[in-house]
Amino acid sequence: MTTAQAGGMFDPVAKLKEYISHPSVSADPAFAEGMKGARECVGGILTDIGFSVEYVPTELHPIVVAKREGDPSWPHVIIYGHYDVQPPDPLELWATPPFEATEIEGRLYGRGTADNKGPLMAHLTAVGRLLEAEPDLPLRITFVIEGEEEIGSQNFKSFLRQHKDKLAGADFVFLSDTGIPSAEQMVITVGLRGMVAFEIELSNARSDLHSGMYGGMIMNPIQGLAELCASLHTPDGRVNIPGFYDAVIEVEPWEREQLSLLGLSEEQFAKFLGVSKFHVPPGYTPFEAIRFLPTLEFNGIGGGYQGEGTKTVIPTKARVKISCRLVPNQTPEEMKKIIFKAIEQRVPAGLKLKLSPQHEATPYLVVPPDRSNSPKDQPPVLARAFRATHEVVKEVWGKAPLYLREGGSVGLIADLKSELNLDAILLGLFLPQDNLHAPNEGFDLSVMHKGITTIQEILRRTAHP
Amino acid sequence: MTTAQAGGMFDPVAKLKEYISHPSVSADPAFAEGMKGARECVGGILTDIGFSVEYVPTELHPIVVAKREGDPSWPHVIIYGHYDVQPPDPLELWATPPFEATEIEGRLYGRGTADNKGPLMAHLTAVGRLLEAEPDLPLRITFVIEGEEEIGSQNFKSFLRQHKDKLAGADFVFLSDTGIPSAEQMVITVGLRGMVAFEIELSNARSDLHSGMYGGMIMNPIQGLAELCASLHTPDGRVNIPGFYDAVIEVEPWEREQLSLLGLSEEQFAKFLGVSKFHVPPGYTPFEAIRFLPTLEFNGIGGGYQGEGTKTVIPTKARVKISCRLVPNQTPEEMKKIIFKAIEQRVPAGLKLKLSPQHEATPYLVVPPDRSNSPKDQPPVLARAFRATHEVVKEVWGKAPLYLREGGSVGLIADLKSELNLDAILLGLFLPQDNLHAPNEGFDLSVMHKGITTIQEILRRTAHP
Repeated sequence: MTTAQAGGMFDPVAKLKEYISHPSVSADPAFAEGMKGARECVGGILTDIGFSVEYVPTELHPIVVAKREGDPSWPHVIIYGHYDVQPPDPLELWATPPFEATEIEGRLYGRGTADNKGPLMAHLTAVGRLLEAEPDLPLRITFVIEGEEEIGSQNFKSFLRQHKDKLAGADFVFLSDTGIPSAEQMVITVGLRGMVAFEIELSNARSDLHSGMYGGMIMNPIQGLAELCASLHTPDGRVNIPGFYDAVIEVEPWEREQLSLLGLSEEQFAKFLGVSKFHVPPGYTPFEAIRFLPTLEFNGIGGGYQGEGTKTVIPTKARVKISCRLVPNQTPEEMKKIIFKAIEQRVPAGLKLKLSPQHEATPYLVVPPDRSNSPKDQPPVLARAFRATHEVVKEVWGKAPLYLREGGSVGLIADLKSELNLDAILLGLFLPQDNLHAPNEGFDLSVMHKGITTIQEILRRTAHP
Repeated sequence: MTTAQAGGMFDPVAKLKEYISHPSVSADPAFAEGMKGARECVGGILTDIGFSVEYVPTELHPIVVAKREGDPSWPHVIIYGHYDVQPPDPLELWATPPFEATEIEGRLYGRGTADNKGPLMAHLTAVGRLLEAEPDLPLRITFVIEGEEEIGSQNFKSFLRQHKDKLAGADFVFLSDTGIPSAEQMVITVGLRGMVAFEIELSNARSDLHSGMYGGMIMNPIQGLAELCASLHTPDGRVNIPGFYDAVIEVEPWEREQLSLLGLSEEQFAKFLGVSKFHVPPGYTPFEAIRFLPTLEFNGIGGGYQGEGTKTVIPTKARVKISCRLVPNQTPEEMKKIIFKAIEQRVPAGLKLKLSPQHEATPYLVVPPDRSNSPKDQPPVLARAFRATHEVVKEVWGKAPLYLREGGSVGLIADLKSELNLDAILLGLFLPQDNLHAPNEGFDLSVMHKGITTIQEILRRTAHP
């Protein structure tokens, strides 16, 4: 019996492999069976460790809600995770099968290992061990594990509205769906970027046209789209949309200081990403830019003939998918308004515009206790959990955590704030090399084991002040 | 027995339907069987009308060469056609199956009906009827029917070099692979644009990256490609590459005059194409621009996630397919040099460029007898055939043909000029509504029947001066 299996609990790595084997791609209806499999896998684990499990239907993928009830005086923590994963394509770039988790040199490879199946498995294991060690632990725990995080958690907000009772009396949210710079440095994420995603389609003639017979006569939709897209940034790397930065708040000195403690080297990071240079607005390091600034990124473009060889057409239409990351104090509503206005004004003459909003997320910021220059009173259980986290991380990881904003978006964190006024402790567990949303996603098992110990002890100290 | 079947000859419409049923897409190896079927269909017809048929291998698709030999003193005409067609995609936009020719209200729909199977069938039928009526006709005829026209006739030049003997003593080339503005107005095409086609790929990081964790830090290849593409035109519609127009020759007054006789209305033409406005460099009408000016058109673009919903990645690469049409006196070699130089200079910092040349074609111009202000002596058989064409068109179509340059490219016409010093009479047979290279390609059967009569009589008068 290994350490990982101490106490008769399930082996988290074996369980994670099983969990990964369910291809739970929420974006594609073809994976409905995998969604069901992943959902029931996680529900089964929760039942095994003593939770009452419910699959709450939404308009698309049900949410797993699992409760450990208790005395109303006990603290109540919500542990969040998601059982859905990103699509695995491009498949040909995977070195191992994306849905057969493969262990190589202390890392587990497969779609969802890091985002979010591995980190969620750390929480499940920690809770299982904690309750095994102390069956009467004075702590109420509610797991909320959704199936639409990778497609924008569109139904999460209405779930919160309809099922407020299930989360009544919660003190804070605890989760691991954020990153750390190395296996040695814990980061507590205190801010997340929001998002406005949409698709632009420009079209012209009634059908594709022969580029010889009609070339040089009309505006080519690809040309028009290129001109429109090119207008959206300035040469120095800023987004070129009036008002785009108006709501961005000043970065506080402690934030820049914490970030500097990360000790990241631009050269090493460029090498790691395989890029020859960074492209960042003036006044920001690359590490600051991805945390403190909003963006406009192109996620996909398509139009005309993309097969082998040549096909000399002027295509009738061309499309681009864009997502903007927002920073705290920007709202999706307001940003969508100014972005769409700029796009509508820049459609080249002769082309028709179709602008389709896709998903949205509000940015998030929490100021942990003892950090802000202008501290606000925090609810006592949240403040206690934050302080417990600080101490446990120092003990288990050998140094204090850093408190950083992250570049990614976890829209439901903002929803939990707006709907239930709950803040979150985001304990990072994935590494830069974990290839989230990309081929060869992987998860460091030593981080997982350290994470289990950390989570278990944070919850214990939250229960026992 | 209908008129179309007079004299016991095959019915050209029925034969054309059979010919269309062979899906001869030269660009895609998956259609090898269709290529073979189309080749043997046309070879079979030629055998039936008394030609000796040979399939001359090339590096890719064999060329059908069929000869009617005769006394060396007889004129010798080469009739050119191509048995390959464009890919049929996007398939979902076809109203009828692309490879099951469907007759609707006097038009035949299917891939290749107009480009080039229908027009070639007109030549085959005309020659069949002519020889049936006059078995001893003093005319040598060589059909040359290639299978790579839609992918740039890359092997045609070396075929001409290796098989000069098969075409020895030829006086001129006769073909129908050009258009007419309406079923009432014949056009003899006297100029064709050339082409330089290529693909640009820009890449950055070693793999797709999460647009949250890395967004706003590096140059997105789609953004870089958009900026590069947007730089290639000026707002007034000219191509923005130094030297791009340097070699363009002055348009002669008779050319603009002939074009004005076309009597095209910009409003009607815009309505026909389904465009709200034209986009043409200053000083040119849309009809002049597509004939007298070179272009740079985008044929296809692709990169990142193009599926349903959102996938928030920064893609590792993005690609665009571009074709430039060239006008007489421009050479593919020189134009490629200046275009590639401009592109290389404009690659946004941080991105890697891969520039892949695709096909090329030299532009072509022939000045018909009695047209030029500075007439050159033309070979007597060519001049006779040009004058016969003028007279026959007046008789069959009720008015004289127009002599116009066209916007498309038929590279082998330039090859026949450069390798064998042969000029061509290009008798137009397809209409603007025939949707070449697009879904719902069709061919007007009344034009086909008039074309058969015209071709038959031109060849007869060329044989009997």
